[in-house]
Amino acid sequence: MRWSDTLIPTLRDAPQEAEIPSHKLMLRAGLMRRLAGGLYTFLPLGLRALRKLEAIVREEMDRAGALEVLMPAAQPRELWDRSGRYAVMGELMYHVTDRQKREMVLGPTHEEVITDLASREISSYRQLPKTFYQIQTKFRDEIRPRFGLMRAREFIMKDAYSFDTAWDAADRSYQAMYDAYARIFARCGLRTRVVEADTGAMGGKWSHEFMVPSEFGEDGIVECEACGYAANLERAERAAPAFDRPGGGGAPPPEEVATPGRSTIEDVSQFLGCAPERLIKTIIYVVDGKTVAVCCAGDREVNESKLRRALEASVVEMADEAAIRRVTGARVGFAGPWGLSIPVYADLGLDGAADYAAGANRDDAHLRHVVLDRDARIAARHDLCVARGGDPCPRCSGALRERRGIEVGHVFKLGTKYSDSFGATFLDEAGAARPLVMGCYGIGVTRTLQAVVEQCRDDKGIIWPLSVAPYRVALLVLNPGDGGAGEAAGRLAADLEARGIDVLLDDRDERAGVKFNDADLLGLPLRVVVSARGLAAGKIEIKPRAGKEVAQAPLEGAADRIAAMCGE
Amino acid sequence: MRWSDTLIPTLRDAPQEAEIPSHKLMLRAGLMRRLAGGLYTFLPLGLRALRKLEAIVREEMDRAGALEVLMPAAQPRELWDRSGRYAVMGELMYHVTDRQKREMVLGPTHEEVITDLASREISSYRQLPKTFYQIQTKFRDEIRPRFGLMRAREFIMKDAYSFDTAWDAADRSYQAMYDAYARIFARCGLRTRVVEADTGAMGGKWSHEFMVPSEFGEDGIVECEACGYAANLERAERAAPAFDRPGGGGAPPPEEVATPGRSTIEDVSQFLGCAPERLIKTIIYVVDGKTVAVCCAGDREVNESKLRRALEASVVEMADEAAIRRVTGARVGFAGPWGLSIPVYADLGLDGAADYAAGANRDDAHLRHVVLDRDARIAARHDLCVARGGDPCPRCSGALRERRGIEVGHVFKLGTKYSDSFGATFLDEAGAARPLVMGCYGIGVTRTLQAVVEQCRDDKGIIWPLSVAPYRVALLVLNPGDGGAGEAAGRLAADLEARGIDVLLDDRDERAGVKFNDADLLGLPLRVVVSARGLAAGKIEIKPRAGKEVAQAPLEGAADRIAAMCGE
Repeated sequence: MRWSDTLIPTLRDAPQEAEIPSHKLMLRAGLMRRLAGGLYTFLPLGLRALRKLEAIVREEMDRAGALEVLMPAAQPRELWDRSGRYAVMGELMYHVTDRQKREMVLGPTHEEVITDLASREISSYRQLPKTFYQIQTKFRDEIRPRFGLMRAREFIMKDAYSFDTAWDAADRSYQAMYDAYARIFARCGLRTRVVEADTGAMGGKWSHEFMVPSEFGEDGIVECEACGYAANLERAERAAPAFDRPGGGGAPPPEEVATPGRSTIEDVSQFLGCAPERLIKTIIYVVDGKTVAVCCAGDREVNESKLRRALEASVVEMADEAAIRRVTGARVGFAGPWGLSIPVYADLGLDGAADYAAGANRDDAHLRHVVLDRDARIAARHDLCVARGGDPCPRCSGALRERRGIEVGHVFKLGTKYSDSFGATFLDEAGAARPLVMGCYGIGVTRTLQAVVEQCRDDKGIIWPLSVAPYRVALLVLNPGDGGAGEAAGRLAADLEARGIDVLLDDRDERAGVKFNDADLLGLPLRVVVSARGLAAGKIEIKPRAGKEVAQAPLEGAADRIAAMCGE
Repeated sequence: MRWSDTLIPTLRDAPQEAEIPSHKLMLRAGLMRRLAGGLYTFLPLGLRALRKLEAIVREEMDRAGALEVLMPAAQPRELWDRSGRYAVMGELMYHVTDRQKREMVLGPTHEEVITDLASREISSYRQLPKTFYQIQTKFRDEIRPRFGLMRAREFIMKDAYSFDTAWDAADRSYQAMYDAYARIFARCGLRTRVVEADTGAMGGKWSHEFMVPSEFGEDGIVECEACGYAANLERAERAAPAFDRPGGGGAPPPEEVATPGRSTIEDVSQFLGCAPERLIKTIIYVVDGKTVAVCCAGDREVNESKLRRALEASVVEMADEAAIRRVTGARVGFAGPWGLSIPVYADLGLDGAADYAAGANRDDAHLRHVVLDRDARIAARHDLCVARGGDPCPRCSGALRERRGIEVGHVFKLGTKYSDSFGATFLDEAGAARPLVMGCYGIGVTRTLQAVVEQCRDDKGIIWPLSVAPYRVALLVLNPGDGGAGEAAGRLAADLEARGIDVLLDDRDERAGVKFNDADLLGLPLRVVVSARGLAAGKIEIKPRAGKEVAQAPLEGAADRIAAMCGE
């Protein structure tokens, strides 16, 4: 392809909308353009990279035995009522009312549609296992679309759904997708980290995320270098802290202190001259309709998913002001774990907590010299807080490290959540009807493309891996009219294209400096330069984008050499 | 691919929803399933055919020099306000309001988005010509989705847009797309007919449609066998009828007849004992705000596009009751072309009309013995009615024949309609800003797939052309466990797949009759049968789906023979 025949509107400066390096580079290299917040048009160069990435995904899905299908983006609302997710998804889904006044949603995911299909088309164990996938456009009404393709309102996903006769069979399907994901990201040139993850709105029993480590990632993850444990902060466990604490035996009794108007951790900490981690934070929750108190150290945040799992509950919500007053007898900000008629759950970070301060369950008052086990009745202790760097690893004696990551893939063991809602059963060998056991699996295809750019770049531009580069070779002709350079470059490009190597021939009437800069910005894996001066010596110049070394190579046999460098 | 590993839920009977043969066959052959009205899920077999069709479209677009891009389905409403099409599209577009209360539309087409893009990225004649295309999902809120993929609410289109410096250059881009379309449909095995067409909501100067002749087509077309003229009924011209009419010279003067309550053509015709084609129908229109009368023979329908073009107007609407009363002095149903203070336009079918009947412009009264030219003042005569079979050809002395067709492609010369709205200009060689001259081009990709099925079938099922068949070979093993038949078939399938020929291996534990019937229903181009009995004689059986002859072929060398029949 000749540069002058396509459209690659490179930019010297990134538009203001772009906040992170990959987003800036994708705009500057002319891969895409913004249509509106969270909506992007792929220009020819960006789409070529996207199609190559999709082809890798498709190949690995097919290799894993998954069957490609294509489901509509528009889905009848009734399906979402049936799964109970209409309410759960809330404003994240786009709603469309057609002219018959029927409501449809634009699917942010397709569990409902595929389970409905499976309930109709799968009837016997003989048809199982089956895994279906699609590469399809999804819609989400993000509160704050940002970072280009990282959090877009319309994006391409590969979603897959497995159906099995039983849990152990479902585990094999899960593992097959897990392995395929690992191959896909490796082939895209991405270094990923697999972390344990929360199942969130998807439901289900267990999940893993494939994360691309990046300071600009929207997800927090912790990992233990000693044993390899890694998890999303939403999910990450932690062990009880091992440090010695003052015992509660000889401590003085609790003492009430007036703390007029001091209702936040920060205020109380300053007022009492006591570090936040030596305060006990007490939060009133409504868990499946029952009111409970949860306490943890003042410098920690409760992880509501952990609370939900620990209490084996479905819905966890913070109590409102009236309920807090009713339960504690005090305004918000003065709750403490004692004298309550509701169960009190303590975070394991408070194990052996002695000489702490906490709310007095009376307006404008706190207690100090509190020894938790002595002064309060704790119903149970659990890991209830969000983990963070420095926490003890839950698997070994190491310490957790905190990082940021971009979630590019997510695999879920769903179990029978959806098959139960849709009555998706099969007849087993004995002729008994049993629910299909499901898994679901997603790759953010457009997000993965940007993650490649985020991970593969330097200060001059993108450094595409061969596998997903829009073209594998950037062929620059300096002064195309000079000494047959244009013709020689055209012949070389044709020779390479005949070998199946895609070439972007920069035939523009531009200065050499512009072409070199654009070549670095676009980041095609091999830069080949043809100039009249080189040709006079029978030479061309070859430089891998990722390397520093510029090689002079004979024009004779150059195509062979370039093809070999492209792995052909 | 083994049948048992994929999902091909064939049906003996078509579901009730299916009305036309191709729709029935696509459901029966397990190519797709209905999710809701006008929404279909492609199952593995259907998607394979669709992807092959898309690949043909992509190859031919690339060959024609078009550049692939991908635009969002969701588009800001403002773009449609800018082109003035928000109102024109009306309820046909889906509207989505996001959580910021901003309105977006789901694009039924992308002129607005691409012209906005071109206005930003194309600035010089040096960048021209450029044609962009995408293969993308479109949404239309059809009043009556039907016939499966023929009129769906979500469907895949290939849309393309050309940008040129001037009309003659735009004509070349148009021709390149026209030629590419002809190649695409030919490669899909479709016989198409190119017809002149109306530009409708798209606007523009000129257009052609690619039609697949079919009794179930939703479009009416007329064609002249003598000269080859062909056009969509919405557009088709016709010459004045050549038959002799009684002259008006000796006719008696008009006579008023009481026609109480007879306001329709049918009623008046019966009441007066006068054939509908001898009545003059007079309709009051508002054309760009001006009221006019249009008259034609009672058995014809006014074609409002023709009226709009004839009067060089933008908006043509029927007048409301109050306006009709004001203009004619009578209720609806009693209008006639005389004594009106507004211009009267006559259809050319009324040339020389004598001894007709028509409304008297008085309630419950008509006139008879009317001679149009004598009794009314006609402002102008034009071809204003919808053409039909039997009408004189507008190009030669032949007669038009009427048929039905499925529109699979449509090419438009748009001119500067959109570039003007979006200020999309370029600088010419003299440095002057001039508007981009555009064309736009669409192929209904999913509709084309069904059109192939509609055209390529018999009473037993589909007869896929090699180019878009889901698999090229149906390999049936009869009694797979018998005499090594399963193993022999497996080896043959592997041998063919190694040559790049896709094979569907029917390894099911089903009776031979079921397999033969399903093979005919699925309609893969070549049916190959492996059975223990055949193998004992060293033979297999080969039959093209389109033919009648069953050939016995030696197992030895069978792959070569099959590959040759597949054109490899």
